Amino acid sequence: MTDYLQRAENVLDKINQLAGISDDPTFVTRTFGTKAFLQGSRLIQTWMQEAGLQTRVDAIGNVRGRFVSPMAGAKTFVIASHMDTVVNAGKFDGPMGVIMGLDLIENLRQFGKALPFNLELIAFSDEEGVRFHTTYLGSKVVAGSFDPSLLVKKDESGTSLSEVIQAMGETTDQLPSDAIAPDDWLGYFEIHIEQGPVLYERQVPVAVVTAIAGQKRIEVTFTGMAGHAGTVPMDMRQDALCAAAEFILEVEKFGFANRHNLVSTVGKLNVINAASNVIPGDVSCSLDLRSNDPAFLEYAYRNMQKQCASLCAERSITFQWKLIQETVPVTCDTKLNEMLGQAIQASGYERIDLVSGAGHDGVPISQVSPIAMLFVRCFQGISHNPLENVELTDMAATLQVADRFLNYLIDGFCHSDDRRNLKIS
Amino acid sequence: MTDYLQRAENVLDKINQLAGISDDPTFVTRTFGTKAFLQGSRLIQTWMQEAGLQTRVDAIGNVRGRFVSPMAGAKTFVIASHMDTVVNAGKFDGPMGVIMGLDLIENLRQFGKALPFNLELIAFSDEEGVRFHTTYLGSKVVAGSFDPSLLVKKDESGTSLSEVIQAMGETTDQLPSDAIAPDDWLGYFEIHIEQGPVLYERQVPVAVVTAIAGQKRIEVTFTGMAGHAGTVPMDMRQDALCAAAEFILEVEKFGFANRHNLVSTVGKLNVINAASNVIPGDVSCSLDLRSNDPAFLEYAYRNMQKQCASLCAERSITFQWKLIQETVPVTCDTKLNEMLGQAIQASGYERIDLVSGAGHDGVPISQVSPIAMLFVRCFQGISHNPLENVELTDMAATLQVADRFLNYLIDGFCHSDDRRNLKIS
Repeated sequence: MTDYLQRAENVLDKINQLAGISDDPTFVTRTFGTKAFLQGSRLIQTWMQEAGLQTRVDAIGNVRGRFVSPMAGAKTFVIASHMDTVVNAGKFDGPMGVIMGLDLIENLRQFGKALPFNLELIAFSDEEGVRFHTTYLGSKVVAGSFDPSLLVKKDESGTSLSEVIQAMGETTDQLPSDAIAPDDWLGYFEIHIEQGPVLYERQVPVAVVTAIAGQKRIEVTFTGMAGHAGTVPMDMRQDALCAAAEFILEVEKFGFANRHNLVSTVGKLNVINAASNVIPGDVSCSLDLRSNDPAFLEYAYRNMQKQCASLCAERSITFQWKLIQETVPVTCDTKLNEMLGQAIQASGYERIDLVSGAGHDGVPISQVSPIAMLFVRCFQGISHNPLENVELTDMAATLQVADRFLNYLIDGFCHSDDRRNLKIS
Repeated sequence: MTDYLQRAENVLDKINQLAGISDDPTFVTRTFGTKAFLQGSRLIQTWMQEAGLQTRVDAIGNVRGRFVSPMAGAKTFVIASHMDTVVNAGKFDGPMGVIMGLDLIENLRQFGKALPFNLELIAFSDEEGVRFHTTYLGSKVVAGSFDPSLLVKKDESGTSLSEVIQAMGETTDQLPSDAIAPDDWLGYFEIHIEQGPVLYERQVPVAVVTAIAGQKRIEVTFTGMAGHAGTVPMDMRQDALCAAAEFILEVEKFGFANRHNLVSTVGKLNVINAASNVIPGDVSCSLDLRSNDPAFLEYAYRNMQKQCASLCAERSITFQWKLIQETVPVTCDTKLNEMLGQAIQASGYERIDLVSGAGHDGVPISQVSPIAMLFVRCFQGISHNPLENVELTDMAATLQVADRFLNYLIDGFCHSDDRRNLKIS
């Protein structure tokens, strides 16, 4: 482990250098296309160059570095994560995956291995979507699924996405050709902090991600009858907040009973014209449902709507149910995950399989390539917060597991019958 | 009833005249001391003068008109309600009681009765407390319980109560002598709309008020652990909104089970830093408890606090419980209520006894005098709203009942052994 601890220290040093570059002097903020973002992007490109990669910045601002295979017609395996951050961010969410990828490729090159596939390291330019309220701008360009209608979208200052691209010195015409062609993809691998408490609670450094959950976001409004809290008897009320409270507990109960398939959350609740002496007449709330099983997600959605209808009918409350947003679940590649699992166990750790409840760049990439992700334990599951932290020993464990994984990948590929055309799944 | 319908039409005409005087051109608003308020006050004083009363405006702006008894040492019976309104008010809440009082006294005078007690009609200047966030300014001066420390209190524009009093042409030194001395009180009677739906639902025009409920207002804050709605499993959550939801349903359940003694309401709820994809970590809500039974109110308060502690402990949630405001229940006078009940039944209506969940000027007056109130049915229980309405036939019924009540009062007094010193209770 001594060697891995040293490598982890190097990784942490680079993470800290990047965290020192921020649009805000008091905390870490590098949203897409800002001055600090571009400074960080240049630093990453320098690191890639120093590692001997063929580097370039593509039209959406992704920093890309290739370790080219000597084999003619070799396909491409991508190691990536994102370099943008939320406002007042932690320093590990995104950058750790990019910098670890750099370390892994540097290590492969040092051993002088000739690869049976091209390795491409990508630092995606926009995963958090803070500036334009979009997600996966960077990885969608690489996957070839970027939607050009987004180019006219404006940020809060009135600057369009197209203008940001031009200000970075790029041209929007270039966007389609920055995609990796579907036939060229061999696979995709991302290292990311868990952003949840499971590994922290179970005291295990890493986990295999089996799927990225699909999500349905719903807005529910309850309408009863407002009234004076002192003058309307208890048996003559149509209290919209009591209906919402019953709904919240149903959501919790259903989520708990189906906790191996689902998370369900009411995060927002608003009492319209609220006053302590007024019986609530109108209440709105959010509902967030996530599952790795598309059929179960649909069942949960229908079931919650039915429960809502039933409890409202019982209370003479009317309700409106509005689906605001939905994404489908994405399954990680079984064969890649087998390799990851073996690498974890060979490194002496328990194999834990997790579903990612948060979205990641693997979502758009999964449309064109097999994907795999390795989650790393973070302190108390805290993320999007300056308190975000990963222990050095966990980073070392991650590098050890990822090294093994890449070696399995190379070895497996080299032993196959057709070195150029093997599909991972 | 024809005569009463005619009198009700006269009352409604005056209610409409007063509603035409407003600080806002689009809806009725006459808060304490404003231009419209003073214009309304002068109109009421003119009506009192036309009815032959000895009128004056006291230092807090109450309009007072006396029908003086020829008996030496006669005590005073007060008929009153308030003339101020909330913002965007209905036109019946307050003014109807004042104008009906005027009609009742005018009627007594027309029949040339010499009274065994002085009758004083009062239009209280501030019951709603909109301007200075205080209640009962007018009736507290009459009851002799006005708190002089309020004089420095400022409204939203920075004008103090003392300055408002001076702007009305009054002097604050006069305030104590505007009280009716405790020994002079014979009783107090107020006609007011119910502001609740009971009479509307039961299809009865009037009700006897047995008590004005006491109130406890509490602020409860729940603290759990915020987290990502996608990444924190259901069995690792400390969701503050779920705890609040369980509390809300306990409040409703307890209130319903004890609905003959209590109303209990959660009117406000705030999720701190709410987002649809964040598990709520901090939630605050209000609790409003009202009962006519002081012991039961105290029991309800303790019980709700205990329930809250218990459900929070179960969920590993901490909570803070803060008593914000409390008033004690006030009981209306049994003998006056007997007369009111007899007057209702003699007029051909069912006697219904109600507890007032809303506060009224009788609260401060009850400290110096026996009090009685007659509630009048209003449309769907709606109040503090332009939709507030009382049917003409219900106003006629109210005048009929109140006439009888005053006659019982006069007769009962005249048949008593000691005409000057009889205490009603």
